[in-house]
Amino acid sequence: MPIKFEILAEDKVTRARAGLLHTPHGVIETPVFMPVGTGGTVKGMTQDELEALGVQILLGNTYHLYLRPGHELIREAGGLHRFMSWPHPILTDSGGFQVMSLKSLGRVTEDGVWFRSHLDGSSHFLSPERTVEIQLALGSDIMMCLDECVEYPASHETLGRAVSLTTRWAKRAKEALARDTGCGTRDAGDGTRDSGRGNRGAGLEVGDSGAETETTHPESQITDPRSRTPCPVSRVPCPVLFGIVQGGTDKELRRQSAEELLDLDFEGYAVGGLAVGEPKSEMYDTAQFTAELLPRDRPRYLMGVGTPEDLLEGVARGIDMFDCVMPTRNARNACAFTSEGKVILKNARYARDDGPLDPSCTCAVCRRYSRRYLRHLFVTGEMLGAILATHHNLHFYLDTMRRIRQSLLSGEFAEFHCRVRARP
Amino acid sequence: MPIKFEILAEDKVTRARAGLLHTPHGVIETPVFMPVGTGGTVKGMTQDELEALGVQILLGNTYHLYLRPGHELIREAGGLHRFMSWPHPILTDSGGFQVMSLKSLGRVTEDGVWFRSHLDGSSHFLSPERTVEIQLALGSDIMMCLDECVEYPASHETLGRAVSLTTRWAKRAKEALARDTGCGTRDAGDGTRDSGRGNRGAGLEVGDSGAETETTHPESQITDPRSRTPCPVSRVPCPVLFGIVQGGTDKELRRQSAEELLDLDFEGYAVGGLAVGEPKSEMYDTAQFTAELLPRDRPRYLMGVGTPEDLLEGVARGIDMFDCVMPTRNARNACAFTSEGKVILKNARYARDDGPLDPSCTCAVCRRYSRRYLRHLFVTGEMLGAILATHHNLHFYLDTMRRIRQSLLSGEFAEFHCRVRARP
Repeated sequence: MPIKFEILAEDKVTRARAGLLHTPHGVIETPVFMPVGTGGTVKGMTQDELEALGVQILLGNTYHLYLRPGHELIREAGGLHRFMSWPHPILTDSGGFQVMSLKSLGRVTEDGVWFRSHLDGSSHFLSPERTVEIQLALGSDIMMCLDECVEYPASHETLGRAVSLTTRWAKRAKEALARDTGCGTRDAGDGTRDSGRGNRGAGLEVGDSGAETETTHPESQITDPRSRTPCPVSRVPCPVLFGIVQGGTDKELRRQSAEELLDLDFEGYAVGGLAVGEPKSEMYDTAQFTAELLPRDRPRYLMGVGTPEDLLEGVARGIDMFDCVMPTRNARNACAFTSEGKVILKNARYARDDGPLDPSCTCAVCRRYSRRYLRHLFVTGEMLGAILATHHNLHFYLDTMRRIRQSLLSGEFAEFHCRVRARP
Repeated sequence: MPIKFEILAEDKVTRARAGLLHTPHGVIETPVFMPVGTGGTVKGMTQDELEALGVQILLGNTYHLYLRPGHELIREAGGLHRFMSWPHPILTDSGGFQVMSLKSLGRVTEDGVWFRSHLDGSSHFLSPERTVEIQLALGSDIMMCLDECVEYPASHETLGRAVSLTTRWAKRAKEALARDTGCGTRDAGDGTRDSGRGNRGAGLEVGDSGAETETTHPESQITDPRSRTPCPVSRVPCPVLFGIVQGGTDKELRRQSAEELLDLDFEGYAVGGLAVGEPKSEMYDTAQFTAELLPRDRPRYLMGVGTPEDLLEGVARGIDMFDCVMPTRNARNACAFTSEGKVILKNARYARDDGPLDPSCTCAVCRRYSRRYLRHLFVTGEMLGAILATHHNLHFYLDTMRRIRQSLLSGEFAEFHCRVRARP
């Protein structure tokens, strides 16, 4: 079995659980927040800094990496891990969300999605098979199926069509993965595949795990570009493919989508099509309802969510994995998440404020710099403002998740949940 | 004596020397390269990173800090050291160079310089006295006199006028410093001053050295904004004021300028008015000629210079201190300094180059990232490109200077000088 998900603790009151997710590039402690490394970089952060922050897994955007530098250039470099020097787990999305959210640029057909590059208008086609091929070139640890994500609000008919198409695409993606690699079926045996299969050109390997076994951390090979040698091995660990449940906020469609995907037997399941404009209460309800439909022994990933509060509420509803651009994008816009709420660092009120960004925070930024200085950096447009605010916000998200997980392991999650919710 | 400059080694062949320069915020090993922290930040670098790189002293630009956030806001924060959380030495320029290099915006009179802000067109006046006052508010360790820096080429008459004005302004600056602080004269006694003198408003102190003695490193007080308390002390160390020798490439005017400034007895001397367009050979000749006119026991600072080669040639001609925006500004424009020459990281030739930026470099960037990745970051406009290239370039400059200094201490500078110059 290519992925192993261990549940270490389950809350008695809520649906929350803590676990360990084993991937080819290491073990992830769940619940987990995955910073978004859009184009092979978490904007403004060095990889050293991400490691120091305790980031366990990054999300890479297939759409952006496909356009620049192109997945073949990344394959050639030995995969995304080596390309960006990130020897830890990486999850890649399918690219479909970006294609479809750039509305005027995308056209959905049964075969896949036609779209134009937002960079130069060139025409491209993304199919379930193609997105698997690209993600294999990237050497992702966790791959996502191409799905159709529908805007909110949408008619029952539109949502229903998207659910059915998502299922057909999921089946095709799974078949493509099996065909390209010999992976992706529950009976794949030892969780490895012949590394030559499914590769095209130049004798280069898919993935960068080299001679390492599935759970070994090949850091030393990866971090020094000068030590790179062609991988001599014939077996590399299988990436895994997650199915994505769609259906908007319609429970019957969610049930249909989940059941159809369960029949295909994925290694993990994502809850897609949320955080697209629906009221927060509906988002929470749908996440919980959908999570309950999914098997206990597979990781559950709530895509594109959300605020620090959403992490807590999502975990309480049975979610294990989250990603969101909010901590990084907001930081670049001078918005910091703190224990006292959002701080808009450009505000004049901070011009003479020598206190730290967040008095309760232990991050490198709060230990060293004042709000007065941070405001100055944003007002003058200095890069360091974005760098420091991003560092703080990621620390805040990761620390929130660490505290959530700790409370689960110590059996105090429900109490923690109540205490945080009761904050003014 | 407020500044102490110890010479540890002098080369037998060239004019080069290695020393220690004691400042209120710590000891600097000379020869030294000072990264430029224009507006209270070295663009793209955190202060932690600067410390890890081994930066010993930063240059702050009085012009930029005066305009934003304003020197009064920095005085209020306890000075520039506390404001930006840099508890190590800081040299500030006078602001004159920026004012005059923004040609259309500045008008020089006997009193000082009228200029318009490049930000909002507002009108401002900078005099020798005013620049001392601003630099005192910043709490600089090493302050520069206002001087008139003339473009190249310039007539003998223009250069001569600038030399005389620079001398008159230097005298006024020195008198202003003595008047404002009781410092700035060689007979100031114990090198401290009553901290209340010369301050205006709010009972705040000039400088941030608190109860520390001149050579004590008040790091713990400074790095944690939460521990800030009003300084209870009455004596703070004196900053020092450097005179600036002008005269273009005219040796008689350089001699006149140096002699007039020597009569005023400054703690250190800068060679100004170079790197303004003159041929490199004339720059080197003038630097050497001027350095020879200056007292052996005072530090010599070649302003705004230069390339890594210029550092070596400057040291060989008797220079102890350098600053330049080149390593940081070039880095943001994808230009890296390496042991093999300049590397333009956007070039297509690096699109498939998995080697490190500089094979001979031991910096964090060369150890971890490939040229392929760095090129991608610059092509896609990712902040991380500028961050990593800046880190590398600063490391390259600082490492060049460390090797120069080491060769001086081991008596092998002339050999080192020849070897480096002989490189293709």
